[in-house]
Amino acid sequence: MPLIQAGCELHYQVTAPTSFLFHVAAANTPHQVVQHEDVQVEPAKDYDICYLGAEDNRVFRLETIPGVLTLHYQARVVLTPVVESPPHIQETDYPQVPQDVLPYLNPSRYCESDRLAAFAIAEFGHLERGYSRVTAICEWTHGYLTYQSGSTDASTGACDTIILRAGVCRDYAHLAIALCRALCIPARYVSGYALGLQPPDFHGFFEAYLGDHWYLFDATQLVSVEGLVRIGTGRDAADAPFATIIGAATLQKKVVSAQELTREISPQPVANEPAVSTA
Amino acid sequence: MPLIQAGCELHYQVTAPTSFLFHVAAANTPHQVVQHEDVQVEPAKDYDICYLGAEDNRVFRLETIPGVLTLHYQARVVLTPVVESPPHIQETDYPQVPQDVLPYLNPSRYCESDRLAAFAIAEFGHLERGYSRVTAICEWTHGYLTYQSGSTDASTGACDTIILRAGVCRDYAHLAIALCRALCIPARYVSGYALGLQPPDFHGFFEAYLGDHWYLFDATQLVSVEGLVRIGTGRDAADAPFATIIGAATLQKKVVSAQELTREISPQPVANEPAVSTA
Amino acid sequence: MPLIQAGCELHYQVTAPTSFLFHVAAANTPHQVVQHEDVQVEPAKDYDICYLGAEDNRVFRLETIPGVLTLHYQARVVLTPVVESPPHIQETDYPQVPQDVLPYLNPSRYCESDRLAAFAIAEFGHLERGYSRVTAICEWTHGYLTYQSGSTDASTGACDTIILRAGVCRDYAHLAIALCRALCIPARYVSGYALGLQPPDFHGFFEAYLGDHWYLFDATQLVSVEGLVRIGTGRDAADAPFATIIGAATLQKKVVSAQELTREISPQPVANEPAVSTA
Amino acid sequence: MPLIQAGCELHYQVTAPTSFLFHVAAANTPHQVVQHEDVQVEPAKDYDICYLGAEDNRVFRLETIPGVLTLHYQARVVLTPVVESPPHIQETDYPQVPQDVLPYLNPSRYCESDRLAAFAIAEFGHLERGYSRVTAICEWTHGYLTYQSGSTDASTGACDTIILRAGVCRDYAHLAIALCRALCIPARYVSGYALGLQPPDFHGFFEAYLGDHWYLFDATQLVSVEGLVRIGTGRDAADAPFATIIGAATLQKKVVSAQELTREISPQPVANEPAVSTA
Repeated sequence: MPLIQAGCELHYQVTAPTSFLFHVAAANTPHQVVQHEDVQVEPAKDYDICYLGAEDNRVFRLETIPGVLTLHYQARVVLTPVVESPPHIQETDYPQVPQDVLPYLNPSRYCESDRLAAFAIAEFGHLERGYSRVTAICEWTHGYLTYQSGSTDASTGACDTIILRAGVCRDYAHLAIALCRALCIPARYVSGYALGLQPPDFHGFFEAYLGDHWYLFDATQLVSVEGLVRIGTGRDAADAPFATIIGAATLQKKVVSAQELTREISPQPVANEPAVSTA
Repeated sequence: MPLIQAGCELHYQVTAPTSFLFHVAAANTPHQVVQHEDVQVEPAKDYDICYLGAEDNRVFRLETIPGVLTLHYQARVVLTPVVESPPHIQETDYPQVPQDVLPYLNPSRYCESDRLAAFAIAEFGHLERGYSRVTAICEWTHGYLTYQSGSTDASTGACDTIILRAGVCRDYAHLAIALCRALCIPARYVSGYALGLQPPDFHGFFEAYLGDHWYLFDATQLVSVEGLVRIGTGRDAADAPFATIIGAATLQKKVVSAQELTREISPQPVANEPAVSTA
Repeated sequence: MPLIQAGCELHYQVTAPTSFLFHVAAANTPHQVVQHEDVQVEPAKDYDICYLGAEDNRVFRLETIPGVLTLHYQARVVLTPVVESPPHIQETDYPQVPQDVLPYLNPSRYCESDRLAAFAIAEFGHLERGYSRVTAICEWTHGYLTYQSGSTDASTGACDTIILRAGVCRDYAHLAIALCRALCIPARYVSGYALGLQPPDFHGFFEAYLGDHWYLFDATQLVSVEGLVRIGTGRDAADAPFATIIGAATLQKKVVSAQELTREISPQPVANEPAVSTA
Repeated sequence: MPLIQAGCELHYQVTAPTSFLFHVAAANTPHQVVQHEDVQVEPAKDYDICYLGAEDNRVFRLETIPGVLTLHYQARVVLTPVVESPPHIQETDYPQVPQDVLPYLNPSRYCESDRLAAFAIAEFGHLERGYSRVTAICEWTHGYLTYQSGSTDASTGACDTIILRAGVCRDYAHLAIALCRALCIPARYVSGYALGLQPPDFHGFFEAYLGDHWYLFDATQLVSVEGLVRIGTGRDAADAPFATIIGAATLQKKVVSAQELTREISPQPVANEPAVSTA
């Protein structure tokens, strides 16, 4: 059972009364349990815990006045994923897609799957249905795009990314999600901590619904899916930014870390990874 | 207590095995109760009832083989709305927005509020906060756009609509929703039946969260909000189409109707309408 | 010397005083000579001949009143193209691109080459420079897109076409032009008549500047470049529509024809076509 | 006769063999005469003079190797504009638009007038036709947008600018041009030096064809049109960047200046400016 220590420090300069929603807390699911957690706000300040969206993302909510604001977050997380052998995992026929999964076939702000039906069918329509088709989408996305900080911004969607052929982790995830949905494979965005990510940062990856599980995929192929720690889950990054700020604040410094305490997971992505579900 | 009879007939030619999700059933809420309902599928066929999305939209799900398919739906609905006087309704300050309402501030596929902050502030930032500001958005949208069948398609979003200055009911709603969200007013899409709509059809309108209610608005200003019967609620029309079709089927005929049995509601939009909430 | 008879009939219903610019006349170039030409307007009406744009497109200009308007155009055209063997044709190094050719490296309305640098380099950057690289762009475009009437409209540009993977001849040409320019190969749009096009219609194709000639290419690969009769030349289809209409008129009927009188050209595209320049 | 001294210094770090086109030379027209001009390249290097596009923009073309490259340009320019009283200037009816002006009604890369017909008519269709309508477009653009460095980039077009409501001088010009064309008023982009511009920089403005002249307009309303010194003229900024670079070079420093030697022109924009044509 991998035990991962993950966390962040976020330092802001606040210049007007400002509301923050911090989406940095590790999620609790049947297969990802937060054993221990430490949240510190400086200067000391009360915060509320909110549960947002269909997947009840746990979010810290607080109000601040001008000045410096720092959030320290650390968690120790036990991962007990469902692990499967990819060849056994089928796509779910549309009539069997559960009702709570169906909305993840809809297009969303950054995953305009409604425009990409012909594209997805041309690239992936001939492939065998199943887990391997989503792997093929990830490999294609990884080869098609160049990872480039600053190449995109907060309004970039999957269609832009196809044109620009560059992006960061969230763009990779959005493109892969949009292609899955266009093929009628339910898919959703996950933000999180990632073991072995260099340079360390928050990560954006995704899940596809196959068989009767949500399986994790990393379209950037930068890390192993076994070392992903879920923060938020949603339709796309609009549902899981690391911070939502209403007011006026500037991020001065961001430190993100993730390390395994148990040494069971390869810090690099490995060939023939098993399929992993933690939802 | 207005009593409304509403329904539809949808005739399809199906040319391959096809899955349908019909989003045509009137919703049950504390303020909209379906008294009686009749659903007929021809040829006779079983269907499942699904509950989709954050608002548990009630949807009929069925599988068909090639041939003709007809859905008849009729409902008798009692409306017991919360009715308020607009001047008393305030915008909800961000710190007080409830957690289940917060996701309706996020941008969505057809409501790209993330791109419209400067636009919304320039047009509406100087107006008094409250119900009247959303009314102003509706009036502006109504005056800004020309209602024109065929001017837009299923991939048209609010930003396209601003450029084209034309659209149909869903485009009006998407634009108004995007502007509300850009002003930090939670807003969501509602599909439904509409008393007095000419020509009769399904309608697309929206709700804004003000005070502690979701209030109904019709950006097309074609009908009175008192005569709106909710079907589905979601982030935008992606969550509440009248039919989702996976397979191959062509709509041959669509008949939609809505009439009041009690004669309490004006079939035309009226000046100084009260604020109405049925959520 | 191939001799081609080409022409069209355009029937309009005019409902308000209307100005027409007809871009249907075969061009005169050193390698395409109009031997005989017949222009008839019904009802009989004077028209001016204008020469538009950098390539002096010959255009008929006339004013009409409400009623029926018909234009009959027929030309007999001798083609004496420069014919080269593709392997001998190099790309022109940027410092040697002539000044009158340089503007055809700029992005234009429907050929957003400024956004496609990474795309073009990823797909075609590794290929040997020269005529064969433009052939590769045509083959790629032909394989990438599905020819589909009605899939696009007058505002569709190359970036849209990449997403939608469908289009008509002008979209094929725009995409190929944009990719050429993104690779620093000057390219421009040509409208014309096309021998063997089924169903007969106006055609949209393009020229790339290689060596020291403008060579013809058809990204749709529907016809032989040897049977192309140039009408207009420009940056993209905005410069060479078959008709510009200011007023109110509806096209009722369009008949376009092209036939060879000499039987030297294959009516189908052939393998190992020679490179052809008629500019 | 105003005499203006204008020029620039451009310092580049070149990291690979690179071709430059410098569009910085003041144009010679019947109403703008370059009396004296000094061009220096460091390290000393030959350059060619090219004449590009429909308006024969005068451009310096040179090839460099890695190292430092500096261009110094200074010109003394006499302006003898045609000056008219705005109320006397009519829009040109479409049938009277000269053939060399007609292409400036076409949409271009950054001026998507084809999408803006309804927008332009809704905002400006009711206004009296003539010079004052173009003034109204400038005033509207000036009020509608916020001048904000960094808000847009090289791929931003008029439709984006309408959504974002922010931009720099080229965006102001593009939006005004697109609106003019959508109203059937020929319009084109002009780059140049501008007396009194703060901070000093190259400027982007535009011309509209009215009566039988191309009149100058500055949609940013930052300077007087009497103090504009034309460099390049084209369909939009794609035709008149201050530098086109094929290779690898980084701009290290840019100094632009313009001053009047005669003191006849107000350095600030003035009310009731005359209409000025220098084309």
